[in-house]
Amino acid sequence: MINPFFKNVGPFIVFDILKKLNLNTNQKYSNETIIDIKDLSTSKKNEITFFHLNKYKEAANKTKASFCITTDNLKDELPKSCIPIVVENVLVATSSITAKFYPSSINDNFDNSVVNIDETKFKDNVISGKNVLIGKNVSIGSNCLIGHNTIIEQNVSIGKNCRIGSNSIIRNTLIKDNVKILDKCVIGKHGFGFFPVNNVNLRYPHIGMVIIENHCEIGCGSTIDRGSMSNTVIGKNTYLDNQIHIAHNVKIGENSIIAGQVGIAGSSTLGKNLRIGGQAGISGHLKIGDNVEIAGGSGVIRDIPDNTKVMGYPAKNIREFLKDNK
Amino acid sequence: MINPFFKNVGPFIVFDILKKLNLNTNQKYSNETIIDIKDLSTSKKNEITFFHLNKYKEAANKTKASFCITTDNLKDELPKSCIPIVVENVLVATSSITAKFYPSSINDNFDNSVVNIDETKFKDNVISGKNVLIGKNVSIGSNCLIGHNTIIEQNVSIGKNCRIGSNSIIRNTLIKDNVKILDKCVIGKHGFGFFPVNNVNLRYPHIGMVIIENHCEIGCGSTIDRGSMSNTVIGKNTYLDNQIHIAHNVKIGENSIIAGQVGIAGSSTLGKNLRIGGQAGISGHLKIGDNVEIAGGSGVIRDIPDNTKVMGYPAKNIREFLKDNK
Amino acid sequence: MINPFFKNVGPFIVFDILKKLNLNTNQKYSNETIIDIKDLSTSKKNEITFFHLNKYKEAANKTKASFCITTDNLKDELPKSCIPIVVENVLVATSSITAKFYPSSINDNFDNSVVNIDETKFKDNVISGKNVLIGKNVSIGSNCLIGHNTIIEQNVSIGKNCRIGSNSIIRNTLIKDNVKILDKCVIGKHGFGFFPVNNVNLRYPHIGMVIIENHCEIGCGSTIDRGSMSNTVIGKNTYLDNQIHIAHNVKIGENSIIAGQVGIAGSSTLGKNLRIGGQAGISGHLKIGDNVEIAGGSGVIRDIPDNTKVMGYPAKNIREFLKDNK
Repeated sequence: MINPFFKNVGPFIVFDILKKLNLNTNQKYSNETIIDIKDLSTSKKNEITFFHLNKYKEAANKTKASFCITTDNLKDELPKSCIPIVVENVLVATSSITAKFYPSSINDNFDNSVVNIDETKFKDNVISGKNVLIGKNVSIGSNCLIGHNTIIEQNVSIGKNCRIGSNSIIRNTLIKDNVKILDKCVIGKHGFGFFPVNNVNLRYPHIGMVIIENHCEIGCGSTIDRGSMSNTVIGKNTYLDNQIHIAHNVKIGENSIIAGQVGIAGSSTLGKNLRIGGQAGISGHLKIGDNVEIAGGSGVIRDIPDNTKVMGYPAKNIREFLKDNK
Repeated sequence: MINPFFKNVGPFIVFDILKKLNLNTNQKYSNETIIDIKDLSTSKKNEITFFHLNKYKEAANKTKASFCITTDNLKDELPKSCIPIVVENVLVATSSITAKFYPSSINDNFDNSVVNIDETKFKDNVISGKNVLIGKNVSIGSNCLIGHNTIIEQNVSIGKNCRIGSNSIIRNTLIKDNVKILDKCVIGKHGFGFFPVNNVNLRYPHIGMVIIENHCEIGCGSTIDRGSMSNTVIGKNTYLDNQIHIAHNVKIGENSIIAGQVGIAGSSTLGKNLRIGGQAGISGHLKIGDNVEIAGGSGVIRDIPDNTKVMGYPAKNIREFLKDNK
Repeated sequence: MINPFFKNVGPFIVFDILKKLNLNTNQKYSNETIIDIKDLSTSKKNEITFFHLNKYKEAANKTKASFCITTDNLKDELPKSCIPIVVENVLVATSSITAKFYPSSINDNFDNSVVNIDETKFKDNVISGKNVLIGKNVSIGSNCLIGHNTIIEQNVSIGKNCRIGSNSIIRNTLIKDNVKILDKCVIGKHGFGFFPVNNVNLRYPHIGMVIIENHCEIGCGSTIDRGSMSNTVIGKNTYLDNQIHIAHNVKIGENSIIAGQVGIAGSSTLGKNLRIGGQAGISGHLKIGDNVEIAGGSGVIRDIPDNTKVMGYPAKNIREFLKDNK
C-alpha cells in the first residue's frame, strides 16, 4: 500500500467498478476481484491502474496491473495481461474509483480529534512547546523537539532526533530520523488536484503521503503537498530553504540543495545531488536528472538530462544562455 | 457603501473638504453636501471621486460623482455634472479625504477585542479547533468548520458550509457559501499602499474589503489584501493554490485556476475561466480578459485580450514565445 | 561585537586555533591572543577574519585583522599586518573557529524557555493578544502592540511604538522604533548556510543578528534570516510587502520599497531609495547601488550601479530590455 494511513475498503469485483463508471457491466471478466488502485509502475496483478498521457507509454507497456482505466487511443499500449477499461475522461474515472477504495482520503478538513500533547503518552519523552496538538495515529521517536503551536494532525510518523519548529502543521507524513522542519510549514495536505467544472470543481482523492528521508531540512513557511496516486518524497540529506512549495507526487533525490521560494509542480521527478537556485520553477510531469544545476529564477519546462547546468526561461544550457544574454 | 464594515462619519460640506486640502474654500459650491467617497465607476450624485491616471479616462468621462479630486491636466475629461477639485497630488489628497470619511480604516493593528469562540454565540453551531478567536461584528453561517489557532478578527461574514483551516487570520472579509480557506492564510489586511516619503512613509486608508464568492478555495499560506477604494474580489468557483499573493483592489473572475506562488499586483482586473501557471506574476492596473491562459513563470506587464494564451517575460503570445525559444 | 546576543567564550591563543584546524601549531605567533572572529571589513587588531573569494580582494587589502583564514592563492592580497592561516576550505575552517568562539550560535531549536507574557514584566506596559510568548533577554519599549500567538524568542530588543502582528516568530533581532511587523513573519532564524556533505550536511554558525531600523514595515508571511558573520540589516523607513524572503547577511538601505514575493539571496548589499517590483530576485554576493529601480519579475545576477533602472532575466537596462522585447 502506498500509504499506510488511509484505509482500503476493497476489494471489489470488476462489476462494481464498471457500474460506478456507468459502463457495460456485462463482461466476461466482471467477476474478477480487484484489490487496490495504484499508478502504472507500482500496480500488480489483481490491481487496477490508469493511463492518460502518451508520455507514460513506457510505464504502460510494462505495467503489471490486471486492469487499466484508459482511453480508446491509448489502450493498445497496454500489455496483454492488462485489460483496458475504456472511458472518456481517465482522471475523472480514476478519481471516482480511488474514492471508492479510499473514502477517508477525500476529507481534508482540520483534524478536530487532536489533543494537547500534555494529555498524550508523548508528554514525557518529547520536548514540546506551548499549545502543541497531537492527532490520532501519531508516533514520535526518541529525542525529538516540537515547537510552540505546532499541530501534528492524524497519520504522522516522526523518527528519532527530529526537530520540528513552531506554528507548523503536519498530517499524512512519514518523517524519518534526524529531520529538521522549521517554523510555519504545512506538510501533508492534499495537492492542488481537481477536475475543473464550472460552478463547482470536483476534487480528486489524494491517497499518497509525504515521505521525508533522514537528515533533511525543510525551511520556514514551506508547503509540501501529499501525493494523489503516489507519494511525495524528499530524499535523504536534501535541504529546502524558506518559502518553498513542493506539489503532489513530486520526488526529489538525495543530497540536493534547493534555495528559497522555489516551486516544483505536480508529479515531477528530480534526481540526486541537485543545486536549484532561488525562485526557480519546475513544471509538472518532468524528469530532472542527477547532478543537475538549475540557476536561480529559471523556469524549467522540459526534461533535463543528468549532469547538466541550465538557466533561463525556458531553461536551457547555461553556457548558451549566458552567451545569448551578454 | 463598498464596505459595510467601516463607518462613514460623513456627510461633509465641500468647504470642509477644501479646507482639509488647503485649497480656497470660497467657492460657489462650498456649501454643497458630500456623502461619500468612491472610485470613478461606482460613485454617484453627491459623492466625491478621484481621477489620477489617463488610462482611467473612459471611466472618468462617465462618472456620476458630483465632485472629483484630479489634476489640471486631467480635469477636462470629467463630465459637466462633475466639479473638479484640482490638486497637485491626487492620491495624497484622496487619501486625506478618505481618512476624513472613514477614520477607522486607518488602523490595522491586531484585533485586541477578540475572544475565544467558546465564549461566543458560535460555540454550539460552529465546529472549531483549539484557541479559535472571534472578533466583533462577525457572522458565521450553518455547518462551518474553523481550524486551530485561527483568528477571525472584526468585520467578517462567513456563509454556509465553509471550511476555514488552522493558523489563518481573517478580517474585513465577506466570505460567501461553500468556501474553503486552507491553513496559514492572511486575508483582509490593508494593501501595500502608501505614499513614499523619506523618513516616514504615509499610509493611505483601505476602506475596501475582500469578497470571496461561492465555492472558492484559497491555498495554504496565501495572502489576499483588502481594497483601498474598491474591493478585492475572488470570483465564484475560483481556486487558488498555495503561497499566492493577491494585492489590493484585484478582481478575479469566476471558474479560474491559479497555481502556486502566483502574485497579482494591485488594481488589476482579471476575467473568468483563467488558467494561470505557477509563479506567474501580473503587474498592477492591468486588464486580463476571459479565457486567458498564462504559462507558469510568465511576467505579464500589458493588458491581455480574451481567449489568449501567453508565456514569457514580458508575456507574449505562446506560439510566438515558443518559436523564439526553441 | 556584531551581535550582543551570543556569548563569545574566547579569547583563544593562536595555538588553539591551529590545533582545531589540524594545522602545524608550532609557529612563532602561536602564543598570540585572538579575541574575536569577524568579517574582513569589521575585524580589528587581535581578531581573526576570513577571505575566500577574489571579489572581496579590496576589503582584504584593507583588513585590520591580525589573522586571516584564507587559501594559498589569495593570501598575498592581505596586508603585512595580517598573518594568513592557509587552509583548503576557508568556509569550513571559518565555521569551525566561529563555533569555537560562539558555541551557543549553533543551536536553532525552538526556544523552550519562553513564558506567557502575562507572567512577565511586560504584562502591564505592552498591549498583547492571547497566547503571546516571551523568551529570555527580551526588551520592549513603550507603547508597543504584540498580536495573538506571536512568539518573541530569546535575544530580541524592540523599540518604542512598534506594532507586531499575530502568529509571528522573532529571535536574535534588534528592532528600532516605530517599526511594524505584520502577521506570520519569521525573523532572526539562521540562514540557509551549510557545507554540502553527502549523507549529512554541515551547518555553519550564524553569529549575526537582524537589525530593523526605525519606521520600517515588514509584510505578512515574510522571512528574514539573521547573518552568519555579519548582520542582516533593513534600513530606515524601508517597506517590505508580503511573502518576501531576505537571506542572511543582506543589507538594504533606507527609504526603499520592495513589493510582494521578492527574494534576496545571501550577502548582497543594496543601496537606498530602491524600488523593487514584485517577484524580483537578486542573487547572492551582489552590490546594488542607490536609487536603483528593478522591475517586477526581474532576475538580477550582476552588480547594478547607482541610479539605474533594470528589467528582465538577466536584468539589464530597462530601455534596452523593452526595445529587445517589443
